[in-house]
Amino acid sequence: MHFPGYYEFFCPAPTLAGHRALEKIPTLLHRLGARRPMLVTDKGVAGAGLVEIVQAAISKDVMIGAVEDDVPPDSDLTVVNRLAGIYRDKRCDSIIAVGGGSVLDTAKGMNIVVSENADDLMRFSGAGRLTRPLKPLIAIPTTAGTGSEVTMVAVIADHANNRKMLFTSYFLVPDAAVLDTRMTLTLPPAITAATGMDALTHAVEAYTCLAKNPVSDAHALSAIELISQNLLPVIKDPENREGRLALAVGANLAGVAFSNAMVGMVHTLGHSVGAVCGVPHGTCMAILLPYGLEYNMHKNGHFTAQLLLPLAGAQAVARTPSHLRARQVVAMIRQMNQRLHQETGGAHARFFKEVVGPDGQERVPVDKLEAIAEKALGDGSIFYNPEELEKDDLQMVMSHAWAGTPLDSNRVKKGSLQIR
Amino acid sequence: MHFPGYYEFFCPAPTLAGHRALEKIPTLLHRLGARRPMLVTDKGVAGAGLVEIVQAAISKDVMIGAVEDDVPPDSDLTVVNRLAGIYRDKRCDSIIAVGGGSVLDTAKGMNIVVSENADDLMRFSGAGRLTRPLKPLIAIPTTAGTGSEVTMVAVIADHANNRKMLFTSYFLVPDAAVLDTRMTLTLPPAITAATGMDALTHAVEAYTCLAKNPVSDAHALSAIELISQNLLPVIKDPENREGRLALAVGANLAGVAFSNAMVGMVHTLGHSVGAVCGVPHGTCMAILLPYGLEYNMHKNGHFTAQLLLPLAGAQAVARTPSHLRARQVVAMIRQMNQRLHQETGGAHARFFKEVVGPDGQERVPVDKLEAIAEKALGDGSIFYNPEELEKDDLQMVMSHAWAGTPLDSNRVKKGSLQIR
Repeated sequence: MHFPGYYEFFCPAPTLAGHRALEKIPTLLHRLGARRPMLVTDKGVAGAGLVEIVQAAISKDVMIGAVEDDVPPDSDLTVVNRLAGIYRDKRCDSIIAVGGGSVLDTAKGMNIVVSENADDLMRFSGAGRLTRPLKPLIAIPTTAGTGSEVTMVAVIADHANNRKMLFTSYFLVPDAAVLDTRMTLTLPPAITAATGMDALTHAVEAYTCLAKNPVSDAHALSAIELISQNLLPVIKDPENREGRLALAVGANLAGVAFSNAMVGMVHTLGHSVGAVCGVPHGTCMAILLPYGLEYNMHKNGHFTAQLLLPLAGAQAVARTPSHLRARQVVAMIRQMNQRLHQETGGAHARFFKEVVGPDGQERVPVDKLEAIAEKALGDGSIFYNPEELEKDDLQMVMSHAWAGTPLDSNRVKKGSLQIR
Repeated sequence: MHFPGYYEFFCPAPTLAGHRALEKIPTLLHRLGARRPMLVTDKGVAGAGLVEIVQAAISKDVMIGAVEDDVPPDSDLTVVNRLAGIYRDKRCDSIIAVGGGSVLDTAKGMNIVVSENADDLMRFSGAGRLTRPLKPLIAIPTTAGTGSEVTMVAVIADHANNRKMLFTSYFLVPDAAVLDTRMTLTLPPAITAATGMDALTHAVEAYTCLAKNPVSDAHALSAIELISQNLLPVIKDPENREGRLALAVGANLAGVAFSNAMVGMVHTLGHSVGAVCGVPHGTCMAILLPYGLEYNMHKNGHFTAQLLLPLAGAQAVARTPSHLRARQVVAMIRQMNQRLHQETGGAHARFFKEVVGPDGQERVPVDKLEAIAEKALGDGSIFYNPEELEKDDLQMVMSHAWAGTPLDSNRVKKGSLQIR
C-alpha cells in the first residue's frame, strides 16, 4: 500500500443509496431543517420521466415549491440568476438538483446567490471565498459517471462577459447525494458505457496518480471492482437493477476518490478533446484510459499492476507473474472497450477515428491533434500526472489514441513501458 | 460484493494524516474561523510529553487560550462543567482534544455547554437534539484503536444522579481528525497490541455484521490490510514511523467503517466483560474476535472468507480452497494473538484466564461468566450480530474464550461453523 508522508482526506457528502432511496428525501429534508425545496433539472431528465419519479416519491410528504426543468447544457450566469429569482418568488428554502454536471453547477451557483443575497456572483469566485453554510442542497445524479454530486467545485459561465467563474469551497459540497436505481435505469446503452468508463477512469487515475492516499485508494479499488463487474452485465440487460445500483455506487466512490487524489493525463487530454472537438467527456475517457496507463507505466506500473485484483480477482493475480500484471490491466481495459463496442452495436467508440457526429462526420479530424495537444498543456490536471508531458508527448499519445494503435515503447518518452 | 437494497453512508470528519500533521492545525483552525483553542487532555497523555509536542507544533502560529490536562478516566458532568467554565473565562473559541475516548467525550460534552450556553446538558441528551453547529473541535487520537475521533456520539456520566447521558448528533462529529505519527510513537507494546486488535475488530465486525454496505466494506478491507501488515512490525520496532502512521490510519478507517455498519457480538460480549470485570476494551476485543467469527460462521462465513485477501494476499486466497478460507481467517487471527503474546513477553492475553490485574489476580474469575452473559443481553450491538444470541450462547462462547479453546461445532447453536 502506498503511503504518503502527509495527506488530507475529505469525504464530502453523506450518501443515501438504494432501489427506493428517493423516498428517504423527506426525512433528509427534515433533518436539514428544510420544508419547501425547489427542483432543478434539465429537459433531457424531465423528458425521460425522471422528474415525475422524484415528485411521486416525495410529494406526499413534502411541498415542492417550484420545478424548473430548463437548465440548458451551456448554462450560465443568466440562468443562475433567473432560477434564483424563481427560488425567491416561490419562497423555497432548499434545492434538489436532478441531473448531471451542468444542472448541479447551476444549482450550486444559484445557491450562492440565494444564500448570500449576492447580486454579483463574481465576488465569491475563487477558492474558499464562501464563509458559511449555504441553503440545503440535495444532489440526485442521473448518470453513473461524473461523480459531480460529491465535489466542492462549481463552474459558471458568464457568456455576456465571455468568462468562466470557478468556485471552490467546502460549502459547495451538496448536503447529500441520493443514488436511486430508477434514475439510471433507462439510460441508453452507449451513454451507460461512456459514463461507466468515465467513472472507471476517475478511479483508475485516482489510484495511479501522484496525490493518491490510503483512503482515496480504498474508494478507488472498490469503485473499480463495482464498475468492472457490472458495466457489461448492465449493457446486456439494461433493467438489471442490482447492476444499475452498483454502477451508481461505483461512480460515487470514484468521485470521492478523485476529489481527494486528483486525476492525470487521461483527463488532461480528455478535457482538451472535449473543448476542441466537442466529444462527450465519457467517450474521451474510455478511449484515452489505456494510453494514459501505457504512457505512465515506467513511473507507476507498480500501481497499475495492483488494479488486476479488483479487475480480475485473486486467482488472476496469482497466476499472472508480477511483471506482466500492469500490461494485463491495460489489455483488460482495451478488452472492455472492445466488448462495449460490440454490445452497443458500434456506438461505443474504441478510438477517436471512430467517433462520428450526428452528421456522420468524424468528430476528431486528424489535423486537430496538434491543437488538442497544445490546449492540453494548459489543463490543471497535467501537474498530477506521474510523468511529465510536453506537447510532443501529448500529440504522440493522441495520434495513437486516434488510430487505435497501442503505444510503441520505442516512441515513448524516457523509457516508458518498462515496469520498475 | 455484498449489496443491500438501501444504505446510508456518512464519513464524518475530514482527516489530516502524516508524520508532521500537527503542523497543519493552525491552517485548519484558520479555515474553521477559530483563533484561540483550548487544549483538553489527560494526565497520561501529558505525562508522555504529547501535549508539549502539540504545543510546539502550533504555538508559533496560534494563541492557545488554555491547557487542561486533568480529564479523569471516569470523567463526568462535573468535569464537563468545570472545563466549560475555564473555556469561557479564557475566552477560547475552539477545542483541541488530545487523547482517547474519555477525553473526546468530555470535549464533546463541554462543546455542547459552551456552544448552546446550556446550564442543563440533559436537555440535549438523546438522538438528534442538537440543531446547529457547535464550536470547532479538532480531535487528535493518541492510540491507534478506538476510532472515537470520527464518531457522532458522546457519553457523559452524571455521577451525582447515578446516570449516563448519551448524545448522538451529526454536530458532535469533530471538525477534523488529525493523525500524527508522534502521538502513538511511544505507546507501550502491550497497549499497541490491544488497541491495534481493537481497531482490527472494528473493521472485521463492520465487514461481517448485518448493516454492512459497499462503502463501509471499502473502509474495512483497507483497515484490515493496514493493521494486519503493520501491527507486528510495530510491536517489534516501536519506532517504526511508517508502521505507526499506517496503524493510525487503519484505526481511523476502521472507525469510519463501524460508525456506518455497526458491530456485532464481539462488542456485545466485550462491553460486558469490561463492565463486569474492568478488563480494557482492546484486550476484550483481541480475545473475543476469533470466537465471534466462529460462532457466526454458518451465517456469514462467506464474508469472513473474503477477509483472507486483506489478511494474507491474493496468493494465499488462490491456494486456499474457498470452503476453508473462513477457518483460515480465524486461524490467522488466533496466530496474530499468539505472536503478540510472545512479542510482548506475555503481556498481551490470548484468553480471559490469562488476564491478570496489577495485583496478579485473575481479572475474569470463572464464576463471573454467567453475570457477563446476562449483562451482554442488554447491549445494543446484539441486534446487529448475524446470529441470534441467547444467554446460554453467550455464556458458552465466554467459557471458550475464558479457557482458550476454540468453539466445538457440536456445541454451537443452529449448525454454526458450517459454511454455506
